[in-house]
Amino acid sequence: MQPLQPLQPIRSFDDLTAHLRQMGRRIRLAVVCGSDNSTIAAVTRAVNEGFAEVVFVGDCEQIQAQAPVAALAAGLVEYVPAESHEQAAMLAVQMVRDRRADVVMKGLLHTATLLRAVLNKEWGILPQGRVLTHIAMAEIPAYRKLLFFTDAAVIPYPIHEQRLAQVGYLAETLHAFGVEQPKIALLHCAETVSEKFPHTLGYGDICRRAAAGEWGNLIVDGPLDLRTACDLEALRIKGIDSPLQGDADALVVPDIEVGNALYKSLPLFASAKLAGTLKGTLAPVVLPSRGDTAEAKFYSLALATMGC
Amino acid sequence: MQPLQPLQPIRSFDDLTAHLRQMGRRIRLAVVCGSDNSTIAAVTRAVNEGFAEVVFVGDCEQIQAQAPVAALAAGLVEYVPAESHEQAAMLAVQMVRDRRADVVMKGLLHTATLLRAVLNKEWGILPQGRVLTHIAMAEIPAYRKLLFFTDAAVIPYPIHEQRLAQVGYLAETLHAFGVEQPKIALLHCAETVSEKFPHTLGYGDICRRAAAGEWGNLIVDGPLDLRTACDLEALRIKGIDSPLQGDADALVVPDIEVGNALYKSLPLFASAKLAGTLKGTLAPVVLPSRGDTAEAKFYSLALATMGC
Repeated sequence: MQPLQPLQPIRSFDDLTAHLRQMGRRIRLAVVCGSDNSTIAAVTRAVNEGFAEVVFVGDCEQIQAQAPVAALAAGLVEYVPAESHEQAAMLAVQMVRDRRADVVMKGLLHTATLLRAVLNKEWGILPQGRVLTHIAMAEIPAYRKLLFFTDAAVIPYPIHEQRLAQVGYLAETLHAFGVEQPKIALLHCAETVSEKFPHTLGYGDICRRAAAGEWGNLIVDGPLDLRTACDLEALRIKGIDSPLQGDADALVVPDIEVGNALYKSLPLFASAKLAGTLKGTLAPVVLPSRGDTAEAKFYSLALATMGC
Repeated sequence: MQPLQPLQPIRSFDDLTAHLRQMGRRIRLAVVCGSDNSTIAAVTRAVNEGFAEVVFVGDCEQIQAQAPVAALAAGLVEYVPAESHEQAAMLAVQMVRDRRADVVMKGLLHTATLLRAVLNKEWGILPQGRVLTHIAMAEIPAYRKLLFFTDAAVIPYPIHEQRLAQVGYLAETLHAFGVEQPKIALLHCAETVSEKFPHTLGYGDICRRAAAGEWGNLIVDGPLDLRTACDLEALRIKGIDSPLQGDADALVVPDIEVGNALYKSLPLFASAKLAGTLKGTLAPVVLPSRGDTAEAKFYSLALATMGC
């Protein structure tokens, strides 16, 4: 199910929520062991905003006892009991395979437990040969639009084929967000390709594929550092000629350490709002951290909804 | 020459400038080809604040013609002509060896030209066996104190011995800044040691050496992610027990890509002020970027002065 393309590019989390609200249809959300307050608040909000209906898989009695859930309209909420976290994860994954769920969201269970089900070779939801990766989306008050980056959570040191997939997922996501010609920067600490940094050796190939139209209408450039990717003045001062013009919509970061440091530092130091979702699976999977607020979980859910 | 220890920890660039002002002595600064406006403004300010006297090496005629330099008191400024950038770099390095300069600063020449002189095996200023690395210092409005990190500029993927040196340099620097018991976090995207991330395998050894007093009074912990290193609440929510208590003074980052991404993103997205200096050489070496403002160059010079 592809959401309607927005008429204007989505430039903030508020834009995103408004877009999903007026989409006029509900995705079917499978929540695994979602008995914690922040998960319940996030899911309840998605139902109330009108873009989701929910199946709680596992921990049903605790969840039914919660006032916000009890207040949801009949027909928009369903319960599937499970005897263990493992079984709950398996059932949610099975619902995706049976096309009874469009998005899976983790509640109070170990990420590894849910991921084992998602990645199960026999009945999991990662098609053979597909690259599993993570996309993060940041609303940074000091930046003029949303900034996406990949990968902050899944692939430690992406190889070239994985980077190609990452660019493809970014292109898909940004197009769904209404960005006509997304600008994607391939990040590196310097602006030159170097054998000391093997990841930069494939950057030229990615740029050529992008220019040849492999991912539709988009511009890819790199290696660029974060400043020349996002700041036209810095680009000019350095005398670098980049088609991105210091106006990146998304960054492909060198490794998971960079992605994670950005994911953690932007909320802490730049008052940014962050969301994240897995890409590559048959349905988007939301894996919030235990420490995430209800708002953060809602935003990740909204981002995932755009990809289903 | 060791600056006087401050009575109170230095918590901002203003504190740092005030400390250097009241130090009551001038370091001798060799500026290589410093004819550009921002270098001249930074150096002039350091002289006027009372903590530096300056030797301009190379490009002397252009520099002497500049009004701010011409206004400097006699005895505080000197000129050493050079016939090329290479010769200017060599002369500045020679001045360090002859103890006629305490800090070297790059002006308008290629970083590589200056570094070649610094690293020259016969007459350079990196003693054999010493680790050359980079320390950055950030004043982030959203953080309660200065945050140091290493390495954003020199060592791509530090090996264990290089990391030990990095911790040593951080300890020295933070002690000079009056931080009695510096808290240093060894960064990683997760809180667990993993063979997939070879740099984490040495983190335990670093923590043990720190606890055994190898670098004086300080606390080192890791692996920690950036959030659990700098935010007590995040630490508590994740249920992690860390002696840093989410209050890091400094981060040892996994690789140069992380250091560089922080160095570039903090000013852009978090309104941070950044400074940086090389460590390991006989005298600190300041290598500003062409795009740095006069203020940024002044701050890097101030940071370097603390290390000479």
